[in-house]
Amino acid sequence: MAAHTYNQVGKPIPRIDNASKLAGQAIFAEDLQPAGKMLHGLVLRSPHPHARIRSIDTARAEALPGVRAIVTAQDLPDRLVGRYLADERALATDTVRFVGDRVAAVAADTREVAQEALGLIDVDYEQLPAVMDAFDALEDIAPLLHPRMAEYEVVAMAAPAGGNICSLNELSRGDPEKAFAQADRVFEEVYTTGMVHQAYLEPHACLGIHNPDGSFTVHSSTQAPFQLRGMIADALAVSHNRVRLVPTEIGGGFGGKISMQDEVAALALARKSGYPVRIVMTRREDFLCGTPRAGFHIAIKTGVSNDAKLIARTLDILLDGGAYAHGGVLVSWALPNFAEGPYNIPHLRITARCVYTNKPPSSAFRAPGGPQVNFAIESEMERIAAEMGWDAVDFRRNNLMPDGHVSTSGATMDCVMAPETLDAALALSGYKTDQTRPAPNRGRGLAVGNWNVGGMASAAVVKLNDDGSATLLTGVVDLTGVHTALAQIVAEVLDLAMDQVTVKTLDTESAPHATIAAGSQVLKSMGDAALRATEHVREQLFALAVEPLDAPPSRMELHQGDVRVKGAPGRSVPVTNLLGRAMATSGPVVGQGATGNYKRMPSFGTHVADVEVDPDTGQVQLTGYWASQDVGIAVNPVAVEGQIHGAIVQGIGMTLSEEMIFHDDRLANANFLDYKIPSVLDVPPIETVLVEQPAVDGPFGAKGIGEPPIVPVPAAIANAIFHAVGVRVTSLPITPEKLRKAIRAKA
Amino acid sequence: MAAHTYNQVGKPIPRIDNASKLAGQAIFAEDLQPAGKMLHGLVLRSPHPHARIRSIDTARAEALPGVRAIVTAQDLPDRLVGRYLADERALATDTVRFVGDRVAAVAADTREVAQEALGLIDVDYEQLPAVMDAFDALEDIAPLLHPRMAEYEVVAMAAPAGGNICSLNELSRGDPEKAFAQADRVFEEVYTTGMVHQAYLEPHACLGIHNPDGSFTVHSSTQAPFQLRGMIADALAVSHNRVRLVPTEIGGGFGGKISMQDEVAALALARKSGYPVRIVMTRREDFLCGTPRAGFHIAIKTGVSNDAKLIARTLDILLDGGAYAHGGVLVSWALPNFAEGPYNIPHLRITARCVYTNKPPSSAFRAPGGPQVNFAIESEMERIAAEMGWDAVDFRRNNLMPDGHVSTSGATMDCVMAPETLDAALALSGYKTDQTRPAPNRGRGLAVGNWNVGGMASAAVVKLNDDGSATLLTGVVDLTGVHTALAQIVAEVLDLAMDQVTVKTLDTESAPHATIAAGSQVLKSMGDAALRATEHVREQLFALAVEPLDAPPSRMELHQGDVRVKGAPGRSVPVTNLLGRAMATSGPVVGQGATGNYKRMPSFGTHVADVEVDPDTGQVQLTGYWASQDVGIAVNPVAVEGQIHGAIVQGIGMTLSEEMIFHDDRLANANFLDYKIPSVLDVPPIETVLVEQPAVDGPFGAKGIGEPPIVPVPAAIANAIFHAVGVRVTSLPITPEKLRKAIRAKA
Repeated sequence: MAAHTYNQVGKPIPRIDNASKLAGQAIFAEDLQPAGKMLHGLVLRSPHPHARIRSIDTARAEALPGVRAIVTAQDLPDRLVGRYLADERALATDTVRFVGDRVAAVAADTREVAQEALGLIDVDYEQLPAVMDAFDALEDIAPLLHPRMAEYEVVAMAAPAGGNICSLNELSRGDPEKAFAQADRVFEEVYTTGMVHQAYLEPHACLGIHNPDGSFTVHSSTQAPFQLRGMIADALAVSHNRVRLVPTEIGGGFGGKISMQDEVAALALARKSGYPVRIVMTRREDFLCGTPRAGFHIAIKTGVSNDAKLIARTLDILLDGGAYAHGGVLVSWALPNFAEGPYNIPHLRITARCVYTNKPPSSAFRAPGGPQVNFAIESEMERIAAEMGWDAVDFRRNNLMPDGHVSTSGATMDCVMAPETLDAALALSGYKTDQTRPAPNRGRGLAVGNWNVGGMASAAVVKLNDDGSATLLTGVVDLTGVHTALAQIVAEVLDLAMDQVTVKTLDTESAPHATIAAGSQVLKSMGDAALRATEHVREQLFALAVEPLDAPPSRMELHQGDVRVKGAPGRSVPVTNLLGRAMATSGPVVGQGATGNYKRMPSFGTHVADVEVDPDTGQVQLTGYWASQDVGIAVNPVAVEGQIHGAIVQGIGMTLSEEMIFHDDRLANANFLDYKIPSVLDVPPIETVLVEQPAVDGPFGAKGIGEPPIVPVPAAIANAIFHAVGVRVTSLPITPEKLRKAIRAKA
Repeated sequence: MAAHTYNQVGKPIPRIDNASKLAGQAIFAEDLQPAGKMLHGLVLRSPHPHARIRSIDTARAEALPGVRAIVTAQDLPDRLVGRYLADERALATDTVRFVGDRVAAVAADTREVAQEALGLIDVDYEQLPAVMDAFDALEDIAPLLHPRMAEYEVVAMAAPAGGNICSLNELSRGDPEKAFAQADRVFEEVYTTGMVHQAYLEPHACLGIHNPDGSFTVHSSTQAPFQLRGMIADALAVSHNRVRLVPTEIGGGFGGKISMQDEVAALALARKSGYPVRIVMTRREDFLCGTPRAGFHIAIKTGVSNDAKLIARTLDILLDGGAYAHGGVLVSWALPNFAEGPYNIPHLRITARCVYTNKPPSSAFRAPGGPQVNFAIESEMERIAAEMGWDAVDFRRNNLMPDGHVSTSGATMDCVMAPETLDAALALSGYKTDQTRPAPNRGRGLAVGNWNVGGMASAAVVKLNDDGSATLLTGVVDLTGVHTALAQIVAEVLDLAMDQVTVKTLDTESAPHATIAAGSQVLKSMGDAALRATEHVREQLFALAVEPLDAPPSRMELHQGDVRVKGAPGRSVPVTNLLGRAMATSGPVVGQGATGNYKRMPSFGTHVADVEVDPDTGQVQLTGYWASQDVGIAVNPVAVEGQIHGAIVQGIGMTLSEEMIFHDDRLANANFLDYKIPSVLDVPPIETVLVEQPAVDGPFGAKGIGEPPIVPVPAAIANAIFHAVGVRVTSLPITPEKLRKAIRAKA
């Protein structure tokens, strides 16, 4: 634990947005009600997983009283859009590729009329064969989902021509085949994971307004205001300054609110009708049309030597991208960053493919790919140790990557805290390798997780008010309480009290460009921009103080509203005086800071889970959970712990119960009765320990924490189950049915 | 006329806010309707011009169903507030000083209930003697309006103790008394002007919200968001970052929307009731409680020599400040800047006093003091020329201040365009000194006006969107179309099309500090800040282009979306590419610019008016009007001409019909039936000519134009009347009654 003495940084400050949220006054997209008339929009979505649209006849719907506008692809420019591969359209033209694909949209005086109108739109579909399985999609005889893929503006990477693979990547070091041949023992296994929905509480919602000057305003519950603004402007073929995206409060995102949903449809309806149009998805629509976590198929092969060293490994990963290739980016960009796991393996090859299927487009979800791959890696580590008769902790420790490790993608891993988090978790939980089965049907499991926290560019402005209080202007939305941490950074640098600092989220028209609120990067990216902007403010104050203090800036410090000469407490000048001088000379004090894309930082965590298994039903009950996480410096420890708790709960869901199930090519559980997320009864007591070691380049040494704590959850629980009942279910979720079957098979 | 070749600057671009205004979609304060319940606020205002409050009993009013909150001074911190002298309170404590002074405020479910509740508040007043005339207020026996004035935080200047004078200033050069003794002829006269209301179309209105976190949001129709925010925060005794002032669209201000009105009352009601509270003044309330143009009493004495030279002048000015000393600042700050007139007078003394009376507090109104003083100066110039038998134009020309003239306040007058505007007006109108009475009862008058355009600090941010379009972020409101000119400046520097530039007005929480929208200074102050911020953007783009263009920034230029090497058109790189580079390295491109308070710039104009007088009724009909104005460079000529037209119409009002009339210590004409502003039938054809000579330090050489064109209007019309009928009415407004009386007296 690093020692540091700050006034605000490192303190468990309550969230600055608590009051408005607790009072129910935070405005979510569904709450928006513009002055004057507003229409209710609904989207007609494809009932077929794959079909050609022969024609759309809206005449009957248009004749329905109360219907104000209906739009189809005819009302939009002929533009391919989409987050990465530009392979989709705001409204379908000739083809629909999953149940839920947008076909048309209606705006009406009431939601009921809009609903009725949807039923009166006559679409003539020619149904096409659907492919619902990633392996099937690889077959030569598989229907081709994107026959014109060659024409797409592929920004991720080139995909092989002529098939359904939309993204392919291979990274390697050494010669794994040769190393397998020389290994003392080789292990092979296949792990699979289900398609999992982010299950945020607030479904997607937006409000579209066509302004009198022809520009567009859209309010949306989004994690990615600037990126979404760009997509919308592109889809409408207007300049980016003609679209104002106003991010609303957001009732959970977890990666599921980065892509575009109904925003362009709402704007097209607003333009056509002349009224603001609000579209709020139902829970069912959100399940059908969201962008869930991809199901993975991971073939893992590991060669070890008798001295408990990892010699070689191959990972063959196939992920189900769904109808559009949002998830394709994972393969080219994200997987190489973490798929090696926390280990140093001399001979390694990672092959990853993303394939189109007729399922919802899979995309980002809290550490996308992370818990899936870690499930394979850490299950294998435990299995190998057991089969080889090794101490599983020693085996791991023996192979952890060293500080400065260079990954297959060429990135140097700084500040590797894997051993420290392992030790901290052992100490916290009292884990002993010989006590992983304390009683029959009870087990204790451990997993070491790794993740690389993001990455993207941000800018921020900090302005001083004329009484010396400060306001941080940012375009990033607050999903995690990070705005409180940003306020702490500003308060720390300017030596202000917390209530003298306001953090203001602005829309895309008003805010400097901001990163997406995803990728565990806001505190680093916006935090750095805010830190630089605040330092820019301080620099201006010090320059203004040179004359009154008769001292160089290097000798100055801020102290409770004064600039003073260090070590000479009598020599000080109030900031308010300096601001008066500024007004007379250089002008108002406004600081500006920016940070570009930066190297991703590795982050580690070790989790320990205790379970009790009912061998007759296969039901797993978690009885305890301990987590250590490498956090750099926790700017706000209570917020960091909240992130860890939340990630563990979400990890429990994907490990034990959550999966989107398709029957007859249709999603069978598009609701929270049939799609089971953990309730409070499913969550064990959780204890956490923050391993603090300042990150090389985070603000005050901070490191992102949103994603990493979900990574080791499935493997830790799976290993606990293994110790409890001696069987291993290799496909997530480990449902009672699967586990009971495995227990019976073993018996 | 200066030659300049710009792409956007100098072009008559239509206002960028036309569409929203023409579509009726611009949101004014009265349009605001927050989601959920909102209360209607009304203010109980003093019915007495001067009284002591013995007690306020709100019990009966509180018992009225539908009443949600009542506030008095008891609900507010004990704070003196006010724009300049901090001599008033948001709600009166022990004394009321004019009919309309705020005593209490009510919030109720409906405006009708609030109105009824006002009548149920029992205030026990002890009436005090009132003083309604500035000279009366100077008497020893006059009631003392502010007995504790010595305790006020006087920011303008010290006032003499023990009386009603709240501001006093004297400036002089040479020895006027001695010079009068040596002059060939000395002229003396007294001119007076009436109290004039700004008569904006939209009365004051605001909406106050007390946020769950205890901070305050207030929407207000204001010209001065940052200054008002400061006053409100001070009145509520909270830090400035805890008050967010959202400026609404503004239906006219003309200086009348700089002071605080009911904002603090609305916020106190919101805090007490728990609901947003909107207070919209009636027209009558706005007349009673506005901050009109002060009535002036000007004793002018002029010594001339026989060679038509101005030798000496004294001006003794007494202005009626009303109940609070908003207008006092004029005396200390504004009058010295322009009261010399456009002439160079070797011996000069200006004495100015502002005195408290029991009338509404007078404050800023388009060139505050300007038309009043110019009415005296230019009436005298014409009178003296006539009496001396001189050509009045030659007499003026003979005495105009030279370029580089140093005023009595020590300011150097750069870029003096007085002769040029005089010549331009003569040419435009065909004015000949021997043709000022073309027919009986018809006359032509001329006046030369001078004004010094402002001066305050501003900051701005310009950001590039990722397609290269730009957004200017500003905290200044657009009263005059100036945002269009700001957009032209940004477009010019970045070589963008107009529709690629957005100008965004932000609230005080989001915007960098901005000047008030007053004082003819926005284009200079915010224009300079915007120019610097845009140049900062350009500088960043050029730095990013060094590597791809292999050229130094000094050789680069922006051209339609590219940075290119000057003179080498083949060597260019798209701005969008540079923005991509920025994201990978330095971060998003955000430019910042600021300007401090600056030297005021002199501005000149010469106006010619044609009138026809009905000698039987005294009715004056304007038959033609010609105006030349010194504008630096007109960034947007059509906007500049609009300002000139508007100022002339307002000047016609104060010259011929407008005056707030007090009978029995009460305002007798608090409505637009009895207070007569010009209609379209009263406005003659107006022709303008813009005299362009780049200002020394305005952006692209621009100079403010909001105020100067009102300055010469009264004198030009008065001189025309003089030539038409041979008599001179020395008090404004020149009503038919006064003129008929003067004509009869002469006959």
